[in-house]
Order: sequence, then C-alpha cells, then structure tokens
Amino acid sequence: MSQTQQASSNKDRVLIFDTTLRDGEQCPGASMTLEEKLEVAELLDEMGVDIIEAGFPIASDGDFESVAEIAKRVKNAVVCGLSRAAPNDIDRCAEAVRGAKRARIHTFISTSPVHMKYKLQKEPHQVLELVTQQVTRARGHVGDVEWSAEDATRTEMDFLCRCVEAAIKAGATTINLPDTVGYSVPEEYAQMFRTVRERVPNSDKAVFSVHCHNDLGMAVANTLAGIAGGARQIECTVNGIGERAGNASLEEIVMALKVRGDAMPYDSGVEATMLMRASKLVSAVTSFPVQYNKAIVGRNAFAHESGIHQDGMLKHTQTYEIMTPESVGVSKTSLVMGKHSGRHAFKEKLKDLGYSLGENALNDAFTRFKALADRKKHVYDEDIEALVDDEILNAHDRIKVVALTVIAGTMGHQSATLTLDMDGQHITTQSTGNGPVDAIFNAIHKLAPHTATLDLYQVHAVTEGTDAQAEVSVRLSEGDAVVTGKGADPDTMVASARAYVSALNKLMAKRGRGGRPAAMNAGV
Amino acid sequence: MSQTQQASSNKDRVLIFDTTLRDGEQCPGASMTLEEKLEVAELLDEMGVDIIEAGFPIASDGDFESVAEIAKRVKNAVVCGLSRAAPNDIDRCAEAVRGAKRARIHTFISTSPVHMKYKLQKEPHQVLELVTQQVTRARGHVGDVEWSAEDATRTEMDFLCRCVEAAIKAGATTINLPDTVGYSVPEEYAQMFRTVRERVPNSDKAVFSVHCHNDLGMAVANTLAGIAGGARQIECTVNGIGERAGNASLEEIVMALKVRGDAMPYDSGVEATMLMRASKLVSAVTSFPVQYNKAIVGRNAFAHESGIHQDGMLKHTQTYEIMTPESVGVSKTSLVMGKHSGRHAFKEKLKDLGYSLGENALNDAFTRFKALADRKKHVYDEDIEALVDDEILNAHDRIKVVALTVIAGTMGHQSATLTLDMDGQHITTQSTGNGPVDAIFNAIHKLAPHTATLDLYQVHAVTEGTDAQAEVSVRLSEGDAVVTGKGADPDTMVASARAYVSALNKLMAKRGRGGRPAAMNAGV
Repeated sequence: MSQTQQASSNKDRVLIFDTTLRDGEQCPGASMTLEEKLEVAELLDEMGVDIIEAGFPIASDGDFESVAEIAKRVKNAVVCGLSRAAPNDIDRCAEAVRGAKRARIHTFISTSPVHMKYKLQKEPHQVLELVTQQVTRARGHVGDVEWSAEDATRTEMDFLCRCVEAAIKAGATTINLPDTVGYSVPEEYAQMFRTVRERVPNSDKAVFSVHCHNDLGMAVANTLAGIAGGARQIECTVNGIGERAGNASLEEIVMALKVRGDAMPYDSGVEATMLMRASKLVSAVTSFPVQYNKAIVGRNAFAHESGIHQDGMLKHTQTYEIMTPESVGVSKTSLVMGKHSGRHAFKEKLKDLGYSLGENALNDAFTRFKALADRKKHVYDEDIEALVDDEILNAHDRIKVVALTVIAGTMGHQSATLTLDMDGQHITTQSTGNGPVDAIFNAIHKLAPHTATLDLYQVHAVTEGTDAQAEVSVRLSEGDAVVTGKGADPDTMVASARAYVSALNKLMAKRGRGGRPAAMNAGV
Repeated sequence: MSQTQQASSNKDRVLIFDTTLRDGEQCPGASMTLEEKLEVAELLDEMGVDIIEAGFPIASDGDFESVAEIAKRVKNAVVCGLSRAAPNDIDRCAEAVRGAKRARIHTFISTSPVHMKYKLQKEPHQVLELVTQQVTRARGHVGDVEWSAEDATRTEMDFLCRCVEAAIKAGATTINLPDTVGYSVPEEYAQMFRTVRERVPNSDKAVFSVHCHNDLGMAVANTLAGIAGGARQIECTVNGIGERAGNASLEEIVMALKVRGDAMPYDSGVEATMLMRASKLVSAVTSFPVQYNKAIVGRNAFAHESGIHQDGMLKHTQTYEIMTPESVGVSKTSLVMGKHSGRHAFKEKLKDLGYSLGENALNDAFTRFKALADRKKHVYDEDIEALVDDEILNAHDRIKVVALTVIAGTMGHQSATLTLDMDGQHITTQSTGNGPVDAIFNAIHKLAPHTATLDLYQVHAVTEGTDAQAEVSVRLSEGDAVVTGKGADPDTMVASARAYVSALNKLMAKRGRGGRPAAMNAGV
C-alpha cells in the first residue's frame, strides 16, 4: 500500500465525477430528500470527489432547490447540474449552480441513430447544430462545460467525431462518451476513445470522460478500459446505484486503481478509508440494501471465515487478501457504550462516527440512546448510527408516532392501537389487519388518509443477537412520487410504524415542492 | 435475438461449469441442506449447464452425501467433485461421483510463491511432483479430470507452464487457471491464457478454463477476456455468490455472450429464459438477497420507469433495452387465484411455476393456500412460491410452530406465548423480551435450549400492498455450523417464529451429519 502511495506522484491523475445524486437518484425507488442529498454531498466533498453532479435542475422545483443548496454548501468539489439541449433547460441549470465556488453545466444530447430517429425525431444535421447551440449557451453562463453524447457507444463513428469536434469548438471543456445502455465490452470502449481522440483535431482541448452502465456486468472494466484509451474523468455512483443494473461503482474503481496501480498507473483523489461510510450512508438514505458479496463494501467482501482460506490467512494475510479492510474504512464492530455512559461520552462517540448534531437533535438522540441502553445488553456503533440516522431523517416530520400497542399471532384478529401526534394534536385509533403490520398501517391510514400504495417493506436487524434493534424501510408511491421512509427501534412493530409515518411525511413534503414529471430523466 | 440464434452454428461452444454448490456454498452463511442442493442441481441440469460442481466430498460427511446424491440424480450434466492433492482426498471424491452418468474429478494445488511458501510450506519442485501424482491418481478413477492451479494469476509464468504441462501429461483433460484473489484485469488475464497455450507443448490436449472472483468488480470482464485468450470453459455461480465479493455471475456471462454475439462469437448451451428462476431459487435457499440493480436478475434490471427513458421506451424499445425481460424469464407479476380456486387449478399453477410436489406436500400447501386466500385480497404467483418454498424447506422438520400470540408496542413488556410441536409433543411457554421478536426467540429458546447465536434477521414483503405475506430469514451459527432458516406468513411475528424454528431444525440435522472442519474450503 505504502509503495503505491510513494509512486503516486508519477501517475496520471483521473478525476472522479460522482453522479449518485443525479443518475443514482434516477433509479426507481432511490429518491432522496433535500436533507439526505445534502448529507451525501457533504460526505462526497469531504472524501475528495472532484465533481459532484447534484441533480437535473429543470426536472422539478425540488431538483432545482437541491442543486442550488448543494452548490452553496460544497467546499472543494466542482458542483455540476444536468441539462438537455434546450435554452431554458440550460439557463435553469446555470441558475441552480450559480452559488457554487466552482460551477459546471453538463449538457447532453443523443447521437445514436436509434435515439435520434425515435427519441429526438431529428435528422443528424439538426442534432449537430444543437450541439453547437447548447454548448455555446452553457459557456455563456460558466467556463466549465461538459457535453455528453448520449448513447455514444451505439453512435456512428464519423458522426460522433463531428459532434465532439463541434462541442469542443463551442467551448466544451469535458467530453463524456457514455455507454448509456451498458452494451459495450472493454476493448471496444477503449478503442472508441482512442479513435475519437486521434481523429478529432481539437481533442487535446478537452478532458474525455467515461460513463458506464452495468447491464452486462462490465461497467467497472469498461470504465478502466476507457481510461486506458485516454479518458481522464470517471463518472460513477456510490454502491453502483443507477438506472436498471446501475452505474460503475465508485468504490470498486477507486480500489482497483489503488490495488492495481502497477497495471493502471492512475490516481484518484478519493480518500479510500471513507468508502464504507459513503456506502452505508447512500444505502441508508435510498434504502437500497448492499448485497452481501458486493465488492469492497459488501458484508462478505472481507469475510475469510471459511476453511482453507482462514487457514491461509492465519499463515499469511496476503494469501487471500489483496487489500485490507481498514484501507476502505471497515473496522471491527465495537462494543461502545452502556447505560452508564454520559452525555459527553455520547457526544464524543457521535463525533467519531462522523456526525455533528445541533443541540436539540443531540438531546433527542441522547434520550433515545439512554432508553436503548436500558433495554439492550450491548450497544454497538451500528446501533447508535441507526438511532441517529432515524433522528436526523425524521426530525422535521409533521406526523410522529406517540404510542402503539399490537396484538399478533396465529389466533387471528391481529390488531393495533395507535396514537399519532399530528401537527401537535394527539389522536388515537384502533384497527385490525391481515398481520400486525397491516393492522398498524391500517390504523395510520385511518388517522392520516392518503392514496399511496406500499411498494416495499423490509426489516433487518442492525446488529447481531436477538435483542438487536430493527431497522424498517417502507417505500410508498403516489402517482409520480416515490418515497422511502425508515424507522429504527428494538420493537419491530414500533419501527414499522415509524417507517411508514416517515414515508408519509416525505410524501407530504414532496406534494408541497412538486414532483418530477415524466420524460425528465436522462440516459447519460 | 433471432439473428444471434441463427448465427449460433458458426460460433465456438464454451462450456458452462457451475460451482454454486461448491464455491458459492463456501461463502459465510450460504450453506444449503441436501434437499436444497438437489433442487438447485436439478434446475442447473435442466437449464443446460455443462458441468455441475456439486461439492468437496472430503470436507464432511454432509458434503460427501450431497455430491453422491446429486451424481445419481443429474441427467445430462457432468457431475464434478473437488479434491486437494492428497490421495485419500482424491479417492473420496471418486467414490462420491461414482454414481454419475458422466463423472469428473477436479483436483487442485496452489502454484503462486505466496501460497506455496505460507500455505503449503513446500518448495516448487515438490508442488510440481504433486501435480503429476494428483492427476495420475484421479485419472486412475475417471477419464475426465480437471486440474486447477490455485492463485494462477499470481504464479510465476515459467513455473505455471511447467505445472500445466505436467498436469496434461498426467492426463488432465481440463486445465483451470483461476484468479483466486480477484486481482486480475482483463487484458492481463487474456494474455496469461495466450502465453500458457503458446508455450506449453501439449496444451492442445486440454480444454482451458477461467474462474474469476469479483474483488475489484471485474469478474465478468475477466471471464470473457479469458475466453478471448483461448479458454473454452467458464466457472461461475448463480447470482455471483462465492467467497468474499463472489464469483463471476452465470447469468451475466450467459447474457453477455448472447447480446454481444457480434463481438464475442461464443455460444453457451444455457437456456436463458430459466435464468430468473435459477436466481430466485438460489436466493431463496441461501437467503442471500439479490440487490435491486444486480445486472440481469435484479428487480430494477428491466425497470425503465423513469422519465426520459420511459418516454424513449414508448417510442422504440431498443432506445434503452439491449435485451427483453422475457429473454431471461422475467414475466409480469400476475394476479393468479382467489379463495374460490380449486385444488386442480392450484396444482396446475404449481406446475406452471416449476414445482412438482408429492401428494402430501401438495395437500399441505393447498390447505395453506386456502387460508391465505381467505385473508389476502390478491394472491400472486410470488405468494404461492413463498408458501410452497416454505412448505418444501420445512417439510421434514422435527420442531414445528403450532400456535403463537404476541403483544408488542411502545408500552414495554413485549411478550410471546408459544406452542411448539416437538417430535409430536405439544409444549407451551410464555416469555418476554426486548421487542416482540426477542420475546418469540426467547420463548423458543426456553422450549428448545441451544447455544446458537443469531447472526442475521431480515424480513421482506413477498408482494406489494400492506397485506402482503412477510418472508423472514434467520441465520444462526453454532461453532463451525452456520444455517439459515426461512418462514413465510401474512403475520410477520408468525413468520419470524417459523424461520427461527426452521434454522434450529437445520442445525440439529447438521449436528447429526457432522459439520465441515476448518481448513476445508478451496480457493479455486
């Protein structure tokens, strides 16, 4: 590891462009609130991501607001917004990123025959004119402009080169050639960059960028092949979330470059020890679980528990380990605190875990921690994280769970008695259902009528042992709006009620800000 | 698609070697029962996998028994067992696969400096002698022998070539060069095969094989690069399960070859429309969830719900779709049956879903289906699958849940009253806990004392809507044994009790058959 770091000054720098908040958020069910997006953006900034794509400002008022807010907050990274080829689209994007220390406009158009014909319904010469117009308009607002050829990997090469040349001529400083449908294989993707860079006369005036989807399982390999082909910016997402099979995964790319610096002499500026924290945060705010055997950040990624491997590991760690868990920020679950831990120790622990809470939030979290410590034998870091995440995510809710009693079992007649605080008023009702969760949700529905449907319900234990806290995720949809709520409590039923109510609160907030209309996501 | 199929006769055939039951099962928490392994093996056989690696016979009596049983059952595929370089290891493996129509012995040894020095503690010349001895011994039993150079990608090339030459000379018909630690990049892996095949004089006498791990996210790309380098056998697992970050995923490889037949002119014999069924079965028996954006088989893999994509899709499906959901066996969730559906219709439905139950199991499943239909508004295919899987997995259990009543909520004092059937006797107890699940588990512990610890608890809703059945997974560990139990019921609490009891039953079965000792898994 230290060898890699010593050699780093001799290596080419590649820029990491994170699009978790745009392409990642675009996938069904992954939508985040403003507060959640801010938390993710601040972490990405802190870990050394070069460019943060914060959203698609024209898509909705909510999108605009979050890009604008992230632009104000981010300290080091370039903040980027996405826009289509239309003037008002680009102007709206410029307005959103205006507050950033370093602002970028990312504007795209499709260049493949199938996209031009069926999606845009335009002739190639019309698209070529639009390229010049869109980049020129964007450059009127900012000096840092990225242009993307949507579906570049299925674009006819002569036409692609003409578009790239036009974009650079109009002032694009970054040229992104995405594998929009996840169709490419590595050698082919590398060759595309080599050819375009050779044939386009002004290609040395721009940084080339890769953007890969994982439909055939090759997003990371294609990404690295693109770099070998001369690209120097990588577009990726935390945990690889994104449309369909997702995008290239940030953590896999960062670690592949680090571990295989001998074969791939490129450096990213990302602090690898923060990768696990980023993975957990994104998984928490989207409620997308990370599969056990996900590379780098899955719970099994560093599990060498089994037989021969374990034996080999004891003899010499390098027999089966090409990187250490510590290098990506995985630490052993540690027993942290008990019921006698005081407020000061709790505050210090939160700091260690990367949280900075205001006084009120800290008081609330501490009260819940004491209650938890009274009930639970061992309180782990993860327990505190769950509790605090729950507190942060639901702090501004209009509806809160006050009290709940549930009767369940094989005898039938599962029932729930529930008291909610709704804008300060306590209201109680009773309901039955097909199972206790159904009974709880029916009770909530009675008190807070709505038309949302439950798309997803899941529970996992935060730590090991039968007395672990349960973390419940609930995904609701109502028309175009899809929201996810979370709740944590040692009682699964209470956690379920909290999660459902949390989702309802988000839905109400979304109604206020306006949802994203159809035809408002992008394939780059 | 049809074009691809027409051209297939001109393509090179690559063999698919599935190791879900060996390398897949080796990862922490994925262990399967004999019945589960048989079900997976039969499905792999039916879908056209060429070689099924069924287990590691010497590792435990349970492993031996399942390899022997799979060998007897499988109709078309070659059945393969794994063995180390020791004579008794190889003999035991030969005994296990003896009943197969077509049997293979797979024998391996480490060839990299770090493995030879620290793991084997042998000199290279000793390892080279062992290669000849192990292959010779295996050939004494069967004509189909595979030899693997564990950690081939970190092996010194001259030594690797000498080992491969010796193995082929001794009669190995397949030579596997695994990327044991998931360290390779595609071009490098391809080059290794080219070099070995060029330099080893008798290399044309064997089929070369790829075996890739996903630690840096490149398992699939490395696999396909190995094929381009001249290998003609692919080792992979369903859902990519396996040690650490897992193995190359069977479904991604099969579809990459199908979709990109133009760039990779190779054919597998796998029936792609069965990929989804295989993924669901493996996920069910291991309780490893498939992440939403997993390529090919994730729930979002074909989700084009969002904005521009949806718009493009309506205009022309090829704008964002490089394969159809139907091509991998994804069908729309269909409303299937109601409370008036009869026994005959239920039986037909099970046949459609791929189940063939005996008379008793069918009767039990039908009874539970009627009970479910009475309680649940819509009964979907997935509901029936959950119910039947639960029935199959728990049919032979010694302990069963008879009755349960649970009281939960914010008032404290969560309690459970539970009746279990233990070897025919009904016993009842009451218990409290930290949350209702803890109360239930404490009650079970009172009735069936044990020393297992709870490693994992998770719940998901089988279908959408608040009245969906809950499917609960519980993972218990006791010493070396790790088991997973599942339970499904509209009442989450009942499902939790069933899952915990199911895991306990497996643990008791495992105790009877003997667990797998440490130092008994393999890195190939």
